[in-house]
Amino acid sequence: MLFKISVKSTKRTQMIDITEEIQQIVCDREIVTGQTILFVPHTTAAVTINEGADPDVQTDILSTVSDLIPQSNTHRHAEGNSDAHIKSSLFGASETVFIEEGRLVLGTWQHIFFFEGDGPRQRSLYVKIIREQ
Amino acid sequence: MLFKISVKSTKRTQMIDITEEIQQIVCDREIVTGQTILFVPHTTAAVTINEGADPDVQTDILSTVSDLIPQSNTHRHAEGNSDAHIKSSLFGASETVFIEEGRLVLGTWQHIFFFEGDGPRQRSLYVKIIREQ
Amino acid sequence: MLFKISVKSTKRTQMIDITEEIQQIVCDREIVTGQTILFVPHTTAAVTINEGADPDVQTDILSTVSDLIPQSNTHRHAEGNSDAHIKSSLFGASETVFIEEGRLVLGTWQHIFFFEGDGPRQRSLYVKIIREQ
Repeated sequence: MLFKISVKSTKRTQMIDITEEIQQIVCDREIVTGQTILFVPHTTAAVTINEGADPDVQTDILSTVSDLIPQSNTHRHAEGNSDAHIKSSLFGASETVFIEEGRLVLGTWQHIFFFEGDGPRQRSLYVKIIREQ
Repeated sequence: MLFKISVKSTKRTQMIDITEEIQQIVCDREIVTGQTILFVPHTTAAVTINEGADPDVQTDILSTVSDLIPQSNTHRHAEGNSDAHIKSSLFGASETVFIEEGRLVLGTWQHIFFFEGDGPRQRSLYVKIIREQ
Repeated sequence: MLFKISVKSTKRTQMIDITEEIQQIVCDREIVTGQTILFVPHTTAAVTINEGADPDVQTDILSTVSDLIPQSNTHRHAEGNSDAHIKSSLFGASETVFIEEGRLVLGTWQHIFFFEGDGPRQRSLYVKIIREQ
């Protein structure tokens, strides 16, 4: 089962919590045991799992990564978003999360985030659900 | 089949070789062909695959990444471990390794490591085994 | 179904577009719906998905990452390729790409790249194809 969800970013770099939306897909299809595989079909965005309780963690992640990889004008790619392409490859395009007893198997503090590197934009993310048993 | 293994870190940042423990799970269940998917349920740890022969490689990885992302006190998140959160997202929470003829399909030098970013702590890692055929 | 493809790098650091080769495997086996999981069995290489239209993006990615992680001689690992080991862990050893209607599900600009960090070398990459339905 392959689903496509929409994500709307409102800033240039942003981490958007998509945990509940993915959990809802799992609930709606009554999946008890399995996997969900997430895939971002963009080259200036990514998917990453990190702390969702304190929004300062997201701020620290975004600012530190932007300090390391600034939006400089010395890049050859003329669109001015090479920094976002680089961050996209470092965070990665896909993640796998298990499903047990109808719930995503995440640690206490883990949330799933859509990483936006060159927004604001209308984005999408593919969610494959694999039912086991 | 979902298993949870325990990992005990003894330093703040550390790479702990978990290859043999995962191979043992594959052997015990007599899996011949399939996949093992690894998932770390922590936001200041990760899973990564790299050279296991020379421990200097692990030292170089840990020291270089800590030079790039130091444990500074300018982060907003008050727990002082924002660096570990950032490293967690860059290394990533999940990896997939194939199984053929009862063995993990790894390159000559590849070992599977639990990356600890904010230890010492008692940690865990989920291992899903998918049997094919 | 597990396949091994050969990749020949010609420079020390390089991104080699392997999209067509993987699509061809999917076509040859007449896979309509499923997944392809890619795994690099090397500790100084990786697999990553990024823009394939403008080669300047690849140049920017490679040069920025090499600026962050230079091939310095202060590393402890004596082979002089610690930078490549570090990049390998940051880009990651595995990626998953979905298959729908016989085609890899990639975004408009997305191509799949073999990342070479310590070439030129003869390399390989494992491709697992999972047929669904």
